[in-house]
Amino acid sequence: MEYRPGLEGVVAAETEISCLDTGQEQVVVRGYDLLELARKRSYPDVAGLLLDGRLPSPSERARIEAELLAGARTVPGPVWGVLARLPREGHPMDALRTTVSALGLWGEPQHPYRLIGQVAALVANLIRVREGEAPRLPEGDGGFAGAFLGMVTGRAHSPDEVRAFDQTLVAYSEHELPNSTFAARVIASTLADTHGALTGAAASLKGPLHGGANEAVMHMLLEGGDEAGLERLIRERLARGERIMGFGHRVYMGRMDPRAQLVKETLARLVARKAEGERLLRMCERGEEVMRREKGLYPNLDYYAAPVYYLLGILVGLYTPIFFVARSAGLLAHIREQQARNRLFRPRVLYRGPRGLRVD
Amino acid sequence: MEYRPGLEGVVAAETEISCLDTGQEQVVVRGYDLLELARKRSYPDVAGLLLDGRLPSPSERARIEAELLAGARTVPGPVWGVLARLPREGHPMDALRTTVSALGLWGEPQHPYRLIGQVAALVANLIRVREGEAPRLPEGDGGFAGAFLGMVTGRAHSPDEVRAFDQTLVAYSEHELPNSTFAARVIASTLADTHGALTGAAASLKGPLHGGANEAVMHMLLEGGDEAGLERLIRERLARGERIMGFGHRVYMGRMDPRAQLVKETLARLVARKAEGERLLRMCERGEEVMRREKGLYPNLDYYAAPVYYLLGILVGLYTPIFFVARSAGLLAHIREQQARNRLFRPRVLYRGPRGLRVD
Repeated sequence: MEYRPGLEGVVAAETEISCLDTGQEQVVVRGYDLLELARKRSYPDVAGLLLDGRLPSPSERARIEAELLAGARTVPGPVWGVLARLPREGHPMDALRTTVSALGLWGEPQHPYRLIGQVAALVANLIRVREGEAPRLPEGDGGFAGAFLGMVTGRAHSPDEVRAFDQTLVAYSEHELPNSTFAARVIASTLADTHGALTGAAASLKGPLHGGANEAVMHMLLEGGDEAGLERLIRERLARGERIMGFGHRVYMGRMDPRAQLVKETLARLVARKAEGERLLRMCERGEEVMRREKGLYPNLDYYAAPVYYLLGILVGLYTPIFFVARSAGLLAHIREQQARNRLFRPRVLYRGPRGLRVD
Repeated sequence: MEYRPGLEGVVAAETEISCLDTGQEQVVVRGYDLLELARKRSYPDVAGLLLDGRLPSPSERARIEAELLAGARTVPGPVWGVLARLPREGHPMDALRTTVSALGLWGEPQHPYRLIGQVAALVANLIRVREGEAPRLPEGDGGFAGAFLGMVTGRAHSPDEVRAFDQTLVAYSEHELPNSTFAARVIASTLADTHGALTGAAASLKGPLHGGANEAVMHMLLEGGDEAGLERLIRERLARGERIMGFGHRVYMGRMDPRAQLVKETLARLVARKAEGERLLRMCERGEEVMRREKGLYPNLDYYAAPVYYLLGILVGLYTPIFFVARSAGLLAHIREQQARNRLFRPRVLYRGPRGLRVD
């Protein structure tokens, strides 16, 4: 058997959930184009599609939305106590991983939407609660995206802002078999619990080669400061042989991630209503040009999600945790699929070490 | 690319750490036979071999032992506070996964031996601290196996008992690319932190198709009660099409796991000094005969580790957590190896869902 580093090109799962159709340049989610879903529907619809297998009716969507908000309001008190004991210096993703794991002590999720709602409430409060403040929970009975964004920032948002946030949630909701989804399926295949598989996915998503990229992008944009500064920064890093986060993707070789195009449009609409955002958009476009010219690389979703979150007033340390909330719908769908038709993951190695040594 | 469920037979990593040589029926660990290591050396030696690449000298071993014990004594206070807030009804492995993750908030491990020592102290206290008691920490400056066993049971043990426990730790220390090690390498490949990769491995190990098997074996032995009762129980379960834990292994098809043979001998030596253990040994042998005759399956390590732990007076809920402590040496070696020569794990899927649906 040939060794393929990183399992590149290896088929590791059979799924009815999604696939990246690189020929059509489309992310197919249960038969639909993810971009069309993001343009026409909201996150609770797509969560329903992922978890129940079909787009919900208006009354079903209302129930999903209610469960998401009910989940956000019912994080067990001791889990907030666990979060409060974690040091504020630690990365928010480490605190998220720990509290998602802690939720598992209360047993298997009664309802996946409740669990997503719990994770959203934890994410919104990862920084606050470690700073000694009380958790901020959703207000009112409005839509999930608005309630979640309100929990995160502590202020009211315009319908345009909520719509922009909602589109990023849909864009992040599911993406075939990236590292975190693969990690979740690998863990679930031992018949371990759902929270354990989700915890492993959170551990994976933190990595800068995966979800952590959106935070790295924002730090780079802030360090660049303006168009010329960003171009200089990128060129310096490339000259040192460093990797520029937010560009390239294992599957979309030499093309733009279709989700990046979607969220670039989201950013442009948001900027049209916020003068402060124009510089950010111009910087992003400059960075895109430089990377295409210098490396032949195209932006991925993280590259354009970062400035959207910045304009919405979200703390940079919460970008990857928010990605995790959105992806929880896809992760829980994959975990269920793995549980329903399971085969333990147990590959082999190519051994390059010594042989035949004797112990004295 | 052909789809191989569970990645059976697929080479997923290049390693210098270990391999299962099924031709020689040997677990090769950095060139040595794992059984020879278990017979001639102690756990800190093997941890040193795994992590430093060679068997330690006596003075190096003393340093490793000191670091393991120092780690056990330096779990951050807030991590004990996190553990105390977790409900006592939750599975010990869930509490372990949560506290290993929490340790990550204090940054990357300064020293892998310290981290293993911290994990050992957490494991020994997973039940106690959730019941409101203070953590029991290692006493004296003796060997690690004895200190760890003493923390777990709260009593002194004979040299024979400590030796038996030590042999199970070596037997569990490393085993190529089982699900938990694979999960750790998958997570580490995003360049996420060491604790995250270790947390994912803990999530995996809990599963009854993996580390959770040793607890399932003990529950079966206790339910069987005696030789005839066990045989009846196994036959009933087989008739219902249920899986019997502790038998069979993906890699050792139709043969005995060499580690099971080793720990069967460990059990027999322990029983020779403990009259109470004779019935347990006879039961295990009966179960082994029945399964070979009925299913052509042979015992794996979990099958014989369980009765050894029972005779040592260890609570059944701690069997899998103890397996995790032992395996931490192998896991940390694999995580380091992945970090040193990394390629992101990102396989593909075989999509079986619909296509071409339109959103209304």
